[in-house]
Amino acid sequence: MISLDGYFAGSGGELNWHNVDAEFNNEFAVPQLKSAGLLMFGRMTYDLMASYWPTEQAIKNDPVVAGLMNGLPKLVFSTTIEQADWNNTKVVKEIRKLEIEKLKQETAKDILILGSGNIVQQFAKLGLIDEYRLMINPVALGVGKTLFADKIKFKLLKSREFKNGNVLLCYAPSSSLASSLHFVQGRL
Amino acid sequence: MISLDGYFAGSGGELNWHNVDAEFNNEFAVPQLKSAGLLMFGRMTYDLMASYWPTEQAIKNDPVVAGLMNGLPKLVFSTTIEQADWNNTKVVKEIRKLEIEKLKQETAKDILILGSGNIVQQFAKLGLIDEYRLMINPVALGVGKTLFADKIKFKLLKSREFKNGNVLLCYAPSSSLASSLHFVQGRL
Repeated sequence: MISLDGYFAGSGGELNWHNVDAEFNNEFAVPQLKSAGLLMFGRMTYDLMASYWPTEQAIKNDPVVAGLMNGLPKLVFSTTIEQADWNNTKVVKEIRKLEIEKLKQETAKDILILGSGNIVQQFAKLGLIDEYRLMINPVALGVGKTLFADKIKFKLLKSREFKNGNVLLCYAPSSSLASSLHFVQGRL
Repeated sequence: MISLDGYFAGSGGELNWHNVDAEFNNEFAVPQLKSAGLLMFGRMTYDLMASYWPTEQAIKNDPVVAGLMNGLPKLVFSTTIEQADWNNTKVVKEIRKLEIEKLKQETAKDILILGSGNIVQQFAKLGLIDEYRLMINPVALGVGKTLFADKIKFKLLKSREFKNGNVLLCYAPSSSLASSLHFVQGRL
């Protein structure tokens, strides 16, 4: 989830602008989770998720998503917590490129990083991300936490419009687009 | 033109990431200009445009766009220049809400603000913008100049994918979406 101005959270970490409805769940969140064999989080996103999905409220409001979130194997990157209480969750202290590549080979289904802007930035620097799925919410925040720390060129894989005004943009990272991007002075 | 992380220019004003091709011209730029009765610019965008479109190079490379850009009535907001040399261009010192509303009534065709992030921000604060057309380029810049200074909720009007990886998102400003945006803790 990112705002139209590219923030994954408000300046104080606020996520109260997330535009979520039944179509988001049924057409996006559930199929995506069903395609996943492993979920990864940074510690902040993990805390949010782990404090919500195991609750009775979540299981009542969102039984399918909650079942998948609670059941799937999970991994949280953190140097500050020793163990994770959420079902089926392992704590990993460091992002090591070779270990992640091994995980990618061993996991038949997709590995999803949900939210976790800092982790995404570190994975991006190590060339570990195969696809970005950005759900552009119909809101500009003005200020917030940016998802991208560096210049990255992408290849658009697909886009999809949702009834609630969200637009899903799927990209592969690309280092070969430089030649097709050309500067036309004065063109905006 | 904005980057995937919401910048309309690099931190030094760079526009060399703009992803422009024949489809952009024929399917977007030309029809948009043909629908326009007046173009508006901030002084920085004006300088870029005025130094390019009247040149022989521009007229040779892009005859249709150059013809429209050079021919259409134009207005540049600036307190520092007294007169504008580009054909059919008027200098206006201040953005006055009533005068802009009068211009909107008097102009049968669309009024386009091209680029001009600062002017867009001032127009947005005054409630003068009816539609935002954001062409999301397939690149993250990491740092840059932000288009939105404040929180704004939008209504998605349409989206369109281009072959070169750009995605056009058209929005109306909206103040009535607050009730449909709800916070689900832990959902990303």
